[in-house]
Amino acid sequence: MNVPLPSPADLSPLEVSRILDTALAEDLAAGDLTTRAVVPPDAVARGEFITREPLVVAGLALAALTFQRVDPRVTFTALVHDGAHLDPRAVIARVEGPAHGVLTGERVSLNLLQRMSGVATRTRDFVAAVPKGTPTRITDTRKTTPGLRAIERYAVRMGGGHNHRNDLGAGVLIKDNHIAVCGGVRAAIERARANAPHTVRIECEVDSLAMLDEALAAKADVIMLDNFDDARVGEAMERVAKASPRPLIEVSGGVKHERIATLARLGVDIISVGSLTHGARAIDIGLDLTVTGAWTT
Amino acid sequence: MNVPLPSPADLSPLEVSRILDTALAEDLAAGDLTTRAVVPPDAVARGEFITREPLVVAGLALAALTFQRVDPRVTFTALVHDGAHLDPRAVIARVEGPAHGVLTGERVSLNLLQRMSGVATRTRDFVAAVPKGTPTRITDTRKTTPGLRAIERYAVRMGGGHNHRNDLGAGVLIKDNHIAVCGGVRAAIERARANAPHTVRIECEVDSLAMLDEALAAKADVIMLDNFDDARVGEAMERVAKASPRPLIEVSGGVKHERIATLARLGVDIISVGSLTHGARAIDIGLDLTVTGAWTT
Amino acid sequence: MNVPLPSPADLSPLEVSRILDTALAEDLAAGDLTTRAVVPPDAVARGEFITREPLVVAGLALAALTFQRVDPRVTFTALVHDGAHLDPRAVIARVEGPAHGVLTGERVSLNLLQRMSGVATRTRDFVAAVPKGTPTRITDTRKTTPGLRAIERYAVRMGGGHNHRNDLGAGVLIKDNHIAVCGGVRAAIERARANAPHTVRIECEVDSLAMLDEALAAKADVIMLDNFDDARVGEAMERVAKASPRPLIEVSGGVKHERIATLARLGVDIISVGSLTHGARAIDIGLDLTVTGAWTT
Amino acid sequence: MNVPLPSPADLSPLEVSRILDTALAEDLAAGDLTTRAVVPPDAVARGEFITREPLVVAGLALAALTFQRVDPRVTFTALVHDGAHLDPRAVIARVEGPAHGVLTGERVSLNLLQRMSGVATRTRDFVAAVPKGTPTRITDTRKTTPGLRAIERYAVRMGGGHNHRNDLGAGVLIKDNHIAVCGGVRAAIERARANAPHTVRIECEVDSLAMLDEALAAKADVIMLDNFDDARVGEAMERVAKASPRPLIEVSGGVKHERIATLARLGVDIISVGSLTHGARAIDIGLDLTVTGAWTT
Amino acid sequence: MNVPLPSPADLSPLEVSRILDTALAEDLAAGDLTTRAVVPPDAVARGEFITREPLVVAGLALAALTFQRVDPRVTFTALVHDGAHLDPRAVIARVEGPAHGVLTGERVSLNLLQRMSGVATRTRDFVAAVPKGTPTRITDTRKTTPGLRAIERYAVRMGGGHNHRNDLGAGVLIKDNHIAVCGGVRAAIERARANAPHTVRIECEVDSLAMLDEALAAKADVIMLDNFDDARVGEAMERVAKASPRPLIEVSGGVKHERIATLARLGVDIISVGSLTHGARAIDIGLDLTVTGAWTT
Amino acid sequence: MNVPLPSPADLSPLEVSRILDTALAEDLAAGDLTTRAVVPPDAVARGEFITREPLVVAGLALAALTFQRVDPRVTFTALVHDGAHLDPRAVIARVEGPAHGVLTGERVSLNLLQRMSGVATRTRDFVAAVPKGTPTRITDTRKTTPGLRAIERYAVRMGGGHNHRNDLGAGVLIKDNHIAVCGGVRAAIERARANAPHTVRIECEVDSLAMLDEALAAKADVIMLDNFDDARVGEAMERVAKASPRPLIEVSGGVKHERIATLARLGVDIISVGSLTHGARAIDIGLDLTVTGAWTT
Repeated sequence: MNVPLPSPADLSPLEVSRILDTALAEDLAAGDLTTRAVVPPDAVARGEFITREPLVVAGLALAALTFQRVDPRVTFTALVHDGAHLDPRAVIARVEGPAHGVLTGERVSLNLLQRMSGVATRTRDFVAAVPKGTPTRITDTRKTTPGLRAIERYAVRMGGGHNHRNDLGAGVLIKDNHIAVCGGVRAAIERARANAPHTVRIECEVDSLAMLDEALAAKADVIMLDNFDDARVGEAMERVAKASPRPLIEVSGGVKHERIATLARLGVDIISVGSLTHGARAIDIGLDLTVTGAWTT
Repeated sequence: MNVPLPSPADLSPLEVSRILDTALAEDLAAGDLTTRAVVPPDAVARGEFITREPLVVAGLALAALTFQRVDPRVTFTALVHDGAHLDPRAVIARVEGPAHGVLTGERVSLNLLQRMSGVATRTRDFVAAVPKGTPTRITDTRKTTPGLRAIERYAVRMGGGHNHRNDLGAGVLIKDNHIAVCGGVRAAIERARANAPHTVRIECEVDSLAMLDEALAAKADVIMLDNFDDARVGEAMERVAKASPRPLIEVSGGVKHERIATLARLGVDIISVGSLTHGARAIDIGLDLTVTGAWTT
Repeated sequence: MNVPLPSPADLSPLEVSRILDTALAEDLAAGDLTTRAVVPPDAVARGEFITREPLVVAGLALAALTFQRVDPRVTFTALVHDGAHLDPRAVIARVEGPAHGVLTGERVSLNLLQRMSGVATRTRDFVAAVPKGTPTRITDTRKTTPGLRAIERYAVRMGGGHNHRNDLGAGVLIKDNHIAVCGGVRAAIERARANAPHTVRIECEVDSLAMLDEALAAKADVIMLDNFDDARVGEAMERVAKASPRPLIEVSGGVKHERIATLARLGVDIISVGSLTHGARAIDIGLDLTVTGAWTT
Repeated sequence: MNVPLPSPADLSPLEVSRILDTALAEDLAAGDLTTRAVVPPDAVARGEFITREPLVVAGLALAALTFQRVDPRVTFTALVHDGAHLDPRAVIARVEGPAHGVLTGERVSLNLLQRMSGVATRTRDFVAAVPKGTPTRITDTRKTTPGLRAIERYAVRMGGGHNHRNDLGAGVLIKDNHIAVCGGVRAAIERARANAPHTVRIECEVDSLAMLDEALAAKADVIMLDNFDDARVGEAMERVAKASPRPLIEVSGGVKHERIATLARLGVDIISVGSLTHGARAIDIGLDLTVTGAWTT
Repeated sequence: MNVPLPSPADLSPLEVSRILDTALAEDLAAGDLTTRAVVPPDAVARGEFITREPLVVAGLALAALTFQRVDPRVTFTALVHDGAHLDPRAVIARVEGPAHGVLTGERVSLNLLQRMSGVATRTRDFVAAVPKGTPTRITDTRKTTPGLRAIERYAVRMGGGHNHRNDLGAGVLIKDNHIAVCGGVRAAIERARANAPHTVRIECEVDSLAMLDEALAAKADVIMLDNFDDARVGEAMERVAKASPRPLIEVSGGVKHERIATLARLGVDIISVGSLTHGARAIDIGLDLTVTGAWTT
Repeated sequence: MNVPLPSPADLSPLEVSRILDTALAEDLAAGDLTTRAVVPPDAVARGEFITREPLVVAGLALAALTFQRVDPRVTFTALVHDGAHLDPRAVIARVEGPAHGVLTGERVSLNLLQRMSGVATRTRDFVAAVPKGTPTRITDTRKTTPGLRAIERYAVRMGGGHNHRNDLGAGVLIKDNHIAVCGGVRAAIERARANAPHTVRIECEVDSLAMLDEALAAKADVIMLDNFDDARVGEAMERVAKASPRPLIEVSGGVKHERIATLARLGVDIISVGSLTHGARAIDIGLDLTVTGAWTT
């Protein structure tokens, strides 16, 4: 198998394994009636994964490992790396081996590759909207597909995006409800600083400029401006500029593609976009196969 | 918990259980740093799930069971049933209980409810395009999200759609590659009929009218017209009308919403639409919370 | 390992993996006290799997993979293929490798091979009773051993039988209780046709000739004659012959070996026999081992 | 649920849980097409589990828990206890609840109850052949169904039998191959005694009277006479009677029902019978259901 | 069950569930031979968990849930909360119910409670050494028992300690090897800041004062002084005091109990102590039981 | 990988696999932020596992397999075998491969190796205290770390110790509570002998010399003297010497290292020491790494 697997630092082999097992169990637990009935056991299949739209590729390893699990004799040869930008009709990878294995693994490998490439491509669209020279990050959120967080976050990175906190145990993000029970922004930030591991930054969401001032006074490490329009973001950035140390500023709340450039020019550090994952659609990638061999009667 | 769970015939409790465990493990394995640090253990939260767009609801049971797993003392009260059509601002459900449980379960319950409702709503859009009185079915495909097939197929039904075969072992669908190695449509259909369980229909995909004729002659139970334009579908339906017994006719291949009415009027039995699942996006549903209780110092 | 593994279309590698893990966990979680205490670590074992009764072989891959899991250095060489008919004393396979691995894997590999061959052999007995030239199928039912359905259905095929529906989601079979709540055979069949995926046939069980007539009128795709004696089957087949399109006819209900020929000659399409699986016993296969190497003191 | 669950000392709740999950996943992962299509959601089912043959009941808890998992609203009322001997037509248990739950759980509950009762009943047949007043035990072996060892061993006890060692880590049984590499019976027994936990007895299999003498000299705790005919067993028991301390004597090797009385009278302590489990067949138990409720149109 | 379960924000119910299943499977998969053989099924047991040493309690919920899994009729009543400091002979909890359930759950519940309390108690010893009024944190490390990280980190908190990063994906900690390949401290810190999620702090380990200066210049958020003696820590803290913004300072490397006060007085923010978990031993807690009921003959 | 894996008779590959999966999931599910951010993908690491204290090595296979799971291209070369006694500064093993794989696997491999070696080393200390020529065994108990029993028992053997029963289903040990409900030692032993598998010895715990006499009279196979001081052990051994057959005598109850020699000289057969496992601490083993390769800009 000629696929540069993601390093374990990049994508956990255990998460990949779990996702593949689940996806294959869903589709193949009872075998493949059609292939069994119709395709000779010694038939051979060769095929190409071809994109029908422009895309950023993500998920080559998952496609490759799907076939390896189904039949280790199937070879999968990637022609590009995850992260490659391809035009329509580009060949992404080749697959060859026993037709039974290729045919039974086809749908699962495509479902994974199409969805991950969908996330990477959508991310790339947002990232490309950030003007050259501005350091603004586009990040995902926790609005990922249940069960697929690890591979969707990886796909975001392949598209040039960054990740937000992985899970509730990997970062602090104080929201309005947290603030309410603490009696205010300052109390909430102080309580978080006192109790959370020293390894994470204290991020606080604010809904107004008044709350922003409180968060600045309480020295939040990161402040999220939630549903601020461009004008208010501008005003906020002016106040932030005076703070020392200056916190990181994140903008969030249904941010559309067309606002990215403006926000970046205003000096926002992070724009988090839930729809990188929850709004992505599968990219149209096909597997064009040729099967040879025949029933001998 | 006041949620009419789907019957086990409708949605397997084991699949639901597996999906919830996976989704919660992803988000909560290391606890919730923010809530632990900031929210008093005896604080209470009350909230409403409110849709911000028109939707067909699906996934109430998964949302409810998310909280039950996180903290059984949290109550979840559904105000509608899965399948309900709601306008923006409608309240879908209420949740109440210990704030720790409500806050830690919030994201997972929303991710499930938003995605399932997204599939149901998209399905409904296609179903609504079928003219009254025409019996054409809109069905899903196997292009589902890896790991979520059971709940996405359920969501399709909640949106008024039908399901295609569940997996490779639950139906026969002969495609071009199968045909190639068998030496023709007739041979493939006969081989399938000879080998597959008698409980499934023999469906054959055709790319041309010539292949259609072969499939009719071989008495396929279902014939899928792949990437036929409306004119060719019309021609096909005329030929089909003469067959006895008349097979079911399915149209497939990137069918857009605007073709549905025409295809239905041409007498097509089934239109399968991969994008019911692979093109769905999350519906914007929010959980508006009030948390009460305070730190006593 | 020289074992032609079943194709993934024939037998899911994931089901095989799950079954092997479970079987080995049951027997080997705490190691093997005797082998550890008594057998030198560098001892080598060679052995032959020999049948002591006539059999149809099934399960070679599971036996082979048992040893591979236990110690990958053990080689397993099959001398025949699954489906082979062998006489007593025939050698089925050879195994060779570190004695610890061979001895700890012995019982699990035998348990699997004996049971699967038992199902295949019993199936073959029924299949052989079908007169040459009559197309009647012998099929299994869902009366399989809990946890072993995938490999028992495979064994049925190795014995020359066919499979019935795999599970409750892979086929429609309307029984008396379903009929009762629908208000009759016709209503039940129509409701099933309206709601079930178009990929499955509508099968209806009938207890009487009157119900048969109803099912014929409602155009069931398959009709199961439940507990009909030969005379009533004959009468039924006459009525069926007049139907257009003619449905498939299945006979079920404790059918004994001696009725098979008669039923086949009456033109029955399918005879389903629960005891292919629930009445099978393990075939007496032994593993004759030689262990060499000795403790050096 | 009115079922006296086996105590956790008797049958591990974790093994039961694993077996139920597996069995239900096999049958119900894709829902129940027929019930969903045909049975109104609010229909109610009542039924009785009735045996059609004489049996010893085993597995009531598994049947009950099957329904509990499928739909907790289904009630299961056992009329007898595991271990009860019943005549044909006896009612074993009643079930009542939502028809969807009862119908989807029917097959799995029956498969478990029939198989476990099959083992218990077969065991009882052997146990009953032991003459009153002779203390001979009938035991199982490790020739159990892969994945079902825990419940089959429990069923053996319900039939009045005893268990042999549970797994390779729960007892020492020295066989010919172990002996070969140790250079003799004595060396093997001594090595086992020196290395195995002090909590287990040292059992040694012998093929001849000469080996028996060696095993007696080496003071094996238990000696298994493998494939000894009655005469040789008699001779063996005479030699054993002279040993001090007298070891336990087990007879093994395809022992048929008709030899039990003779062997017991010869003073054999244990007769191990692989076919208690590997030769058991499912007992014919039916679930006679009445379903009420109707579609409202 | 009268046990205030930890909130899901504090300790994931899924991790707890996994740990309990594993622990019980290890001990109880084959039932409890002694209890089954010797204790009447209707016997009742009552008992008290009593500590034989001073301790900080942790793990009450795990003890309680052990019994609930084994037999839900067993009641467990905690007399204190996790985090309580108790003297020898104090009663921690009471348990009562069917003797089979109590006896089979005894060892697993004790193993969990003893180990978790061991971690909490050891942590408390270190925390108590921090002089009043100094804000220094005692934290754990990733040197936890494989499989038990979630409950050991919880136990650390019950002992008054704080947690370090949970896992490799929840924080950035740059060590010497990372620095080597980046060409220096500054490059490593900059690279980390550019690539890691904005939600985590950038922590850098330094071995020398020169490296400390580099890390200060590169504006690391947290600097870990690895294996610095007290004098060097003092020198380091002086340099740190001049930095703006002042980073957090962590001391690590086999820190013994007797250095804690000195380090705290030097102004160190965090002292991470691997031996909180990897050096903890089980606290001697006993379960004093009374079993009543008797065999009726 | 140059590691002589334990034979499957010695350590179940399935337990090893489960433990590795759990340990890696805990640490690596979300990838390794630092390595990903800072280390070039093509960097190479080489390193040595070096002990900083005297130790008995145990767990080489687990360390090796950790890296294999993380990245199969990492090679692990053991320089010694499990069971080796090494002095401080000795090199245990070498590791080499892609730096990402080596760095992400470092902590998990060390946690396993340190803990297992800790148990082996502690066991060795006790075993070494048994005077030459006395056959007394040092054994573990069931006081093992939840989830790690299989590898801790293996480590005990590597340290020269023996194992007690593996679990509740692998041996009989009658304690005071069992005796209470049976009406005495004799009744309990007889009941155990009548009901437990013949493959296990009947062990009975006694608290007094009177109970010892009862247990001797009832011919227990093994008698455990619980919390007897040396004088009482001496008295007990005299009484035991007169019994025929003489049972095995185990001493238990917080036995300290300094009593071992005395107890062995008194002729005790087994001394069980819970603290072999529950009192073990991690041995200080380091992984000294060199990472080469650099970012190309």
